[in-house]
Amino acid sequence: MYRTEKVREILSWYEGETPGVKSNLSRLLMHGKLGGTGRLVILPVDQGFEHGPVRSFAPNPAGYDPHYHYQLAIDAGVSGYAAPLGLLEQGADSFAGEVPLILKMNSGNLLGAAANDQAVTASVADALRLGCVGIGFTIYPGSDRCYDMLEELRDLSLQAKSRGLITVVWSYPRGGKVTKEGETAVDVVAYAAHMAALMGATIIKVKLPTEHVDHADTRSSYDNHAVAISDAADRVRHIMEAAFAGKRIVVFSGGAAKTRDELMDEVKGIREGGGNGSIIGRNSFQRPKEEALKLLDEIISVYR
Amino acid sequence: MYRTEKVREILSWYEGETPGVKSNLSRLLMHGKLGGTGRLVILPVDQGFEHGPVRSFAPNPAGYDPHYHYQLAIDAGVSGYAAPLGLLEQGADSFAGEVPLILKMNSGNLLGAAANDQAVTASVADALRLGCVGIGFTIYPGSDRCYDMLEELRDLSLQAKSRGLITVVWSYPRGGKVTKEGETAVDVVAYAAHMAALMGATIIKVKLPTEHVDHADTRSSYDNHAVAISDAADRVRHIMEAAFAGKRIVVFSGGAAKTRDELMDEVKGIREGGGNGSIIGRNSFQRPKEEALKLLDEIISVYR
Amino acid sequence: MYRTEKVREILSWYEGETPGVKSNLSRLLMHGKLGGTGRLVILPVDQGFEHGPVRSFAPNPAGYDPHYHYQLAIDAGVSGYAAPLGLLEQGADSFAGEVPLILKMNSGNLLGAAANDQAVTASVADALRLGCVGIGFTIYPGSDRCYDMLEELRDLSLQAKSRGLITVVWSYPRGGKVTKEGETAVDVVAYAAHMAALMGATIIKVKLPTEHVDHADTRSSYDNHAVAISDAADRVRHIMEAAFAGKRIVVFSGGAAKTRDELMDEVKGIREGGGNGSIIGRNSFQRPKEEALKLLDEIISVYR
Amino acid sequence: MYRTEKVREILSWYEGETPGVKSNLSRLLMHGKLGGTGRLVILPVDQGFEHGPVRSFAPNPAGYDPHYHYQLAIDAGVSGYAAPLGLLEQGADSFAGEVPLILKMNSGNLLGAAANDQAVTASVADALRLGCVGIGFTIYPGSDRCYDMLEELRDLSLQAKSRGLITVVWSYPRGGKVTKEGETAVDVVAYAAHMAALMGATIIKVKLPTEHVDHADTRSSYDNHAVAISDAADRVRHIMEAAFAGKRIVVFSGGAAKTRDELMDEVKGIREGGGNGSIIGRNSFQRPKEEALKLLDEIISVYR
Amino acid sequence: MYRTEKVREILSWYEGETPGVKSNLSRLLMHGKLGGTGRLVILPVDQGFEHGPVRSFAPNPAGYDPHYHYQLAIDAGVSGYAAPLGLLEQGADSFAGEVPLILKMNSGNLLGAAANDQAVTASVADALRLGCVGIGFTIYPGSDRCYDMLEELRDLSLQAKSRGLITVVWSYPRGGKVTKEGETAVDVVAYAAHMAALMGATIIKVKLPTEHVDHADTRSSYDNHAVAISDAADRVRHIMEAAFAGKRIVVFSGGAAKTRDELMDEVKGIREGGGNGSIIGRNSFQRPKEEALKLLDEIISVYR
Repeated sequence: MYRTEKVREILSWYEGETPGVKSNLSRLLMHGKLGGTGRLVILPVDQGFEHGPVRSFAPNPAGYDPHYHYQLAIDAGVSGYAAPLGLLEQGADSFAGEVPLILKMNSGNLLGAAANDQAVTASVADALRLGCVGIGFTIYPGSDRCYDMLEELRDLSLQAKSRGLITVVWSYPRGGKVTKEGETAVDVVAYAAHMAALMGATIIKVKLPTEHVDHADTRSSYDNHAVAISDAADRVRHIMEAAFAGKRIVVFSGGAAKTRDELMDEVKGIREGGGNGSIIGRNSFQRPKEEALKLLDEIISVYR
Repeated sequence: MYRTEKVREILSWYEGETPGVKSNLSRLLMHGKLGGTGRLVILPVDQGFEHGPVRSFAPNPAGYDPHYHYQLAIDAGVSGYAAPLGLLEQGADSFAGEVPLILKMNSGNLLGAAANDQAVTASVADALRLGCVGIGFTIYPGSDRCYDMLEELRDLSLQAKSRGLITVVWSYPRGGKVTKEGETAVDVVAYAAHMAALMGATIIKVKLPTEHVDHADTRSSYDNHAVAISDAADRVRHIMEAAFAGKRIVVFSGGAAKTRDELMDEVKGIREGGGNGSIIGRNSFQRPKEEALKLLDEIISVYR
Repeated sequence: MYRTEKVREILSWYEGETPGVKSNLSRLLMHGKLGGTGRLVILPVDQGFEHGPVRSFAPNPAGYDPHYHYQLAIDAGVSGYAAPLGLLEQGADSFAGEVPLILKMNSGNLLGAAANDQAVTASVADALRLGCVGIGFTIYPGSDRCYDMLEELRDLSLQAKSRGLITVVWSYPRGGKVTKEGETAVDVVAYAAHMAALMGATIIKVKLPTEHVDHADTRSSYDNHAVAISDAADRVRHIMEAAFAGKRIVVFSGGAAKTRDELMDEVKGIREGGGNGSIIGRNSFQRPKEEALKLLDEIISVYR
Repeated sequence: MYRTEKVREILSWYEGETPGVKSNLSRLLMHGKLGGTGRLVILPVDQGFEHGPVRSFAPNPAGYDPHYHYQLAIDAGVSGYAAPLGLLEQGADSFAGEVPLILKMNSGNLLGAAANDQAVTASVADALRLGCVGIGFTIYPGSDRCYDMLEELRDLSLQAKSRGLITVVWSYPRGGKVTKEGETAVDVVAYAAHMAALMGATIIKVKLPTEHVDHADTRSSYDNHAVAISDAADRVRHIMEAAFAGKRIVVFSGGAAKTRDELMDEVKGIREGGGNGSIIGRNSFQRPKEEALKLLDEIISVYR
Repeated sequence: MYRTEKVREILSWYEGETPGVKSNLSRLLMHGKLGGTGRLVILPVDQGFEHGPVRSFAPNPAGYDPHYHYQLAIDAGVSGYAAPLGLLEQGADSFAGEVPLILKMNSGNLLGAAANDQAVTASVADALRLGCVGIGFTIYPGSDRCYDMLEELRDLSLQAKSRGLITVVWSYPRGGKVTKEGETAVDVVAYAAHMAALMGATIIKVKLPTEHVDHADTRSSYDNHAVAISDAADRVRHIMEAAFAGKRIVVFSGGAAKTRDELMDEVKGIREGGGNGSIIGRNSFQRPKEEALKLLDEIISVYR
């Protein structure tokens, strides 16, 4: 399979990995409209588990059907599609090989009182059975279940690596010493990205950080060493540095649905700061399809 | 084995599954008086574990004998019979092959104080040994043990799939942010059905929902997007949509024993809303046999 | 090996079991003075673990020696001998094949504060190594550790079945919603027997129930359906019904040592109610040997 | 290898064990100055873990070196040497085959607040790798972690037995219903010895008991049945009876360092009561070597 | 491979280990500027996990790049480089065989509230895949999770030994009966070193101790037996004694960054007391590279 120089360079950063893992990473990086650019736009559909089906799909009821998301990912030419077990199963055969798949391995839900953990809801064997390029896993650095989540990630990641699958880590700090505002603080997001890199993540997903510094003892490091964090591009640049001096792929999520302009500003900040791309969930599948395709195309154009 | 077009279509929705799983699903869908229609009536006998033998069988003492339920399921021409280990063992040989069996894998009981969990009381190896078409498993979305139950389900479901067995998930929200009234609220039941689908369930069992919406943040989704939930058929239609736009089989339970007319109204609502059928336990085996056969026949006639 | 018609009939009830399990059940049912009658008297010696050696054996110090119990079981012609690992090991070779052995797999002790659980103190591999016909396991329905105990039982029982061993379940409700008086209440004992049957027990051991009904919601079931529980034989009959309409073997224990007359009355009640027999521990090994042999012979005579 | 009649008799009591286990037990019983007598003196060096190195070895700094204890055990002609992993590893090759080794598998430490548990710090694979005759394991009957410790013992003991290793159980009641004084009470120590025997221990280690009876309900058993416990030899005789009528090997520890005369009195009591010997730790390795050798020789002379 | 007499002697102390383990220990001891001297300077980079990337690398931003630390370790001629999974992976191939690697297997982080445990973040299989000479593991003696950490260490260490890898144990007391000041108290550090040795550690890492004695009951042992602890060299000598009379390799860490003179004083104390060397993290990689190389060279010169 053809690889661009850019992708060749990125693969060279994953020197600890087997040819199998690099091969699947290459499949992801060479796919879609951004194929070969080293940039990625990924479609994740895990809101059904996290927020329930009505809040996720009532705005655009076509999304109740798992095939819709496969087709959206293909038509939009995004780099990959990430979802929990059931969603991937219903479409895996119909669309086999048409879009790189990432099996989301753990999920939380709104019905329970606690938000410090997720249930592991799939297995590496499932990812292989469904022809995925990799697995996805959420960690909550700071949570009182964080160490258990890290140990689950270690086990699944070791299995994934030894079977040639990449590991995408959703690193979302919460709880412990992290304040509510701190969940998107620049120091906390940098820590989250670095921790995912240390865990051996192939691709890291974090939230786009704010200028807030949450941890008092860390504030002085920014001041004393004049670390630039005043605009979005600076902060993205800082996060990339925390991800092994940019040698790990980092994609950013924007969170709740917002206006097109807000979203495009975020995307430009990510591009300017050297981030690898975006994960766009609710902002795509909750819009009517034509509108979603248009928006994704605009985002992709920024990265291209 | 002969399959109708309808069953062929349903099997096509389970594209992630092996031929073994589809074969057992086909056995269930082609069996009994509703064979080939895509509708199901299942006889479950797990009340002995849940409520004790006296409350379960004193109304119709013939039910103390495990053979009674096998014979009832066969004589009534229902689609399948679901029960815990001991009950299936006593009859598995006498009635081998005469009715599709579902081994209920976990069970709670009334003697303990807590109602947030169940004990895993059987193994996939038992289901294979007894010639079952699949396993049944209860989850309690919302409960503080929910994530543990989901992880148990994942393990057993993976084993079941890899051995050609279907997985029937009883998805019964309780605890956490779910109020008592909310256990049958339409938003909560939709969430429960969707969660079971995401877990990879082959067949989903939920309670017939009421018009109540339990979660404040979800209320607006119903209002803003004009989701119809005012009559039983609407609500069933909504649940079916939450189950992958109707591409997962959903059967409904009515709960406590009630009058024939109430029950028939429920059944008609399920049929009109496009539900796949009913699970009828206490309303069948607690009635004298002739009466039970008559009632089951009426129910089946509605679905046919 | 010769089997009576009665034993043949009983074996036919265990239709889910392998020939290996039936073979060991047959060995137990054909052994001793009650061999072939379908009735059983079993000698259990687990009081040393439960109450300590002094309270168990000081009344008859010969019992400190493990060989004493083997010889007592053989001389009395009882059906089998059940004890924890150490006791069975010391004698397993000297008396190999002379009496059916049941390895008691879990045990509690008086020194700890909590009485809601037992430790698993032996393995199925031990039972095979020592030539046992089966394993014994205690569950405490109602206890806050009940689900863990049920899951331990499931694991051990699955191992035992697949290796041709029978499973004897001591089902002793306590804790949770069970009052102290309720531990021997007729509704609670019926529930305990039924639960053991659902778990796949080959033989069920419960306490002889009193007329008390412990659970308020269950009271009406007895009244409305006129379930007879006024004398001991009625209650035994009711328990047998809860054990799959009498298709599971149930033996009864009387608890603390008592007078010969009280004991014989209990035994007659069990016989008249159709119970399968008795487990006689302290009432036998705490008496001088001659006296114990005489008592056991009287008991056996009632059942014969 | 030569075996005395006495050792032959003792081996005959372990009839449930494989030839491999008996062979290692024979190695221990035939070794050293007491070889062939059925008596044992064992050198345990686990105080470093339990109390730290300074309190353990500052009185005789030669003991910081692991080789010292090997050489002491060899020069003194004791029956065996028991220690945690690290201590055995450093010397296992230099002294290979010169003294029977017992790998202590679990250990506590003084730095933590709780004293109700120990960490499992070695594996049966280590014991085999180091050429040990067996493993050692501490249980705390009465502790709220007692059942977990019993289950760990069961697992390790099963592994040990199946690989031909003996199991030495340190049975030290504490916590739960056991008072501080009760830890050496005669009823509690008898219970501890019996429990270890029931767990399948090859050799039982308990503390030399006092005349105190700790458990109110057990007091009457001593009175009613006139169990003699007034002098040390009586109490040892009672403990031996609790250990399967003397058919399990029991060795006694005296605890904290004390005068030579106190120690010799204890040893004489053990001999007169029929105990199998002593475990002498701090009283040997904390004395200068010549003094320790002299003391151990005196002790051995009593037993010979 | 050539080995000096000194290294030969050290290897002779690890008599319980396989040739594979000795071979890897030899690789470490023969590497770098101190190769063959029996002394070690190790570069650890785990601060990113423990304190976050900004506080770790902002002082010298070159350190964001994992290759930087590999190159620093090689250029400085240190004995080995220790880091978590992600850091080792990114460089393992580029620098394969150029410096001995130690995979740090567990890590804590500042975001969570509790500091009594670490997450296990790598596997022995990873260490083998990356060509490491061994694994590193932190224990917290005194912590309420200490026994769990010891059991994790036992499992990983057994795996490591059987695959020819050495085990480096970071033994850092905290919690339980250890006061804040006590974490570096001489009695506590001696206990920590001894405990690591008993666990079978190949190399022990402790903090350089102060003169404080933390545990009241241990104070008298120092006084009564005149254990010298008044200067740094005395204390190092005492720690070495606690490490099997100097037969285990012990390296010391100084903790937070400090002036060159303070650091050099510490190093001289370690050398004079017979310690095996230093672990120098923040004091090296947080300085500009030339400065760091100069400092490391000075330290190495002291040891040479």
